[in-house]
Amino acid sequence: MNTVELMEVMKKRRSVRNFSSEPISKESLERITNAGILAPSGADMLPFTFVLIQDQQMKERIREESEKVDVAFHEGLREGLKGWMKAKKITDEKPFLTQAPVLLVVSGDTSMPYWLESTWISIAYMALAIESEGLSSLTYTPTETGFLNGLLDIPNNFSPQVILPIGHTLERLEPKKSRPHEKVFWERHGCEKTY
Amino acid sequence: MNTVELMEVMKKRRSVRNFSSEPISKESLERITNAGILAPSGADMLPFTFVLIQDQQMKERIREESEKVDVAFHEGLREGLKGWMKAKKITDEKPFLTQAPVLLVVSGDTSMPYWLESTWISIAYMALAIESEGLSSLTYTPTETGFLNGLLDIPNNFSPQVILPIGHTLERLEPKKSRPHEKVFWERHGCEKTY
Repeated sequence: MNTVELMEVMKKRRSVRNFSSEPISKESLERITNAGILAPSGADMLPFTFVLIQDQQMKERIREESEKVDVAFHEGLREGLKGWMKAKKITDEKPFLTQAPVLLVVSGDTSMPYWLESTWISIAYMALAIESEGLSSLTYTPTETGFLNGLLDIPNNFSPQVILPIGHTLERLEPKKSRPHEKVFWERHGCEKTY
Repeated sequence: MNTVELMEVMKKRRSVRNFSSEPISKESLERITNAGILAPSGADMLPFTFVLIQDQQMKERIREESEKVDVAFHEGLREGLKGWMKAKKITDEKPFLTQAPVLLVVSGDTSMPYWLESTWISIAYMALAIESEGLSSLTYTPTETGFLNGLLDIPNNFSPQVILPIGHTLERLEPKKSRPHEKVFWERHGCEKTY
């Protein structure tokens, strides 16, 4: 597989907030979590765990608690971000948490070196695997995640980092376009290409 | 591209500490940084920048400062990690920083929401693109990175997160194997598959 093919997956992966109720195969979920385990991690310690949730009642409780913490967040938003959220129709309502057939909660073991960095690499790997399975997701980060420790019996040394709702979607989003390159510098920060 | 092909790239990507001096094409570097820009980020703000360094003198200065901060780190290591480092022959000497034809410094804009998480997703995307280019790298994280702000004119609101040495390697490392699954739980943390 070459980089062009890899980048096609990266371009097609878009954040999605509408899911159909169509179920996901066990094999898909296994490939997705297997991909997450392949992530490189600090001192090869794999400082993360994955909880797959299918139980509808649990999804409802997670949605309820997420909306509770997000109300406070949306009230405290600074103006620029508030506009972006409004344009994207992102509110404190999180229907995708009960719509998606599966929620994947990824937590990092805070006692490990580079736990946060390693956990987010594994989230990136799984986001790509979800796309290559023909499925969609969203890296949803509730402002506070302590309630997940309680609901899902996650030990206190683990910090839940993200809820990935996973499912099929009917949204047809355009693939990402390559974006202007004011992000890439040569030799020094701020310098455009020199060779 | 299906998940099996994607996972082949994930399995082949191994951390490498020996690089040949063979140069890297401009096109490869462009594809790698383009992949990094495709990373999803909090509020789509792309809170990261990439600095590509080819200048040998700068690489030497970066190596010198990295070794300086890492001496202190290695002296303070707790026992378990010390053993792992020793087995892996990881010391405070960082010859790869001057051997690799290119260093890629990735920094996150600390004024942006979810800057750290987004920056590490982009690092994961580039690590995969480096592999799919037939190149190797290492996610090298000096214990302290403030010296990079000084050397590379990186503004103080940016936090350098990683130095990725990029190059060809003569090391022939086995692809990663799928590892035992005590990381994946169903419905609750600690629960093995229930269906």
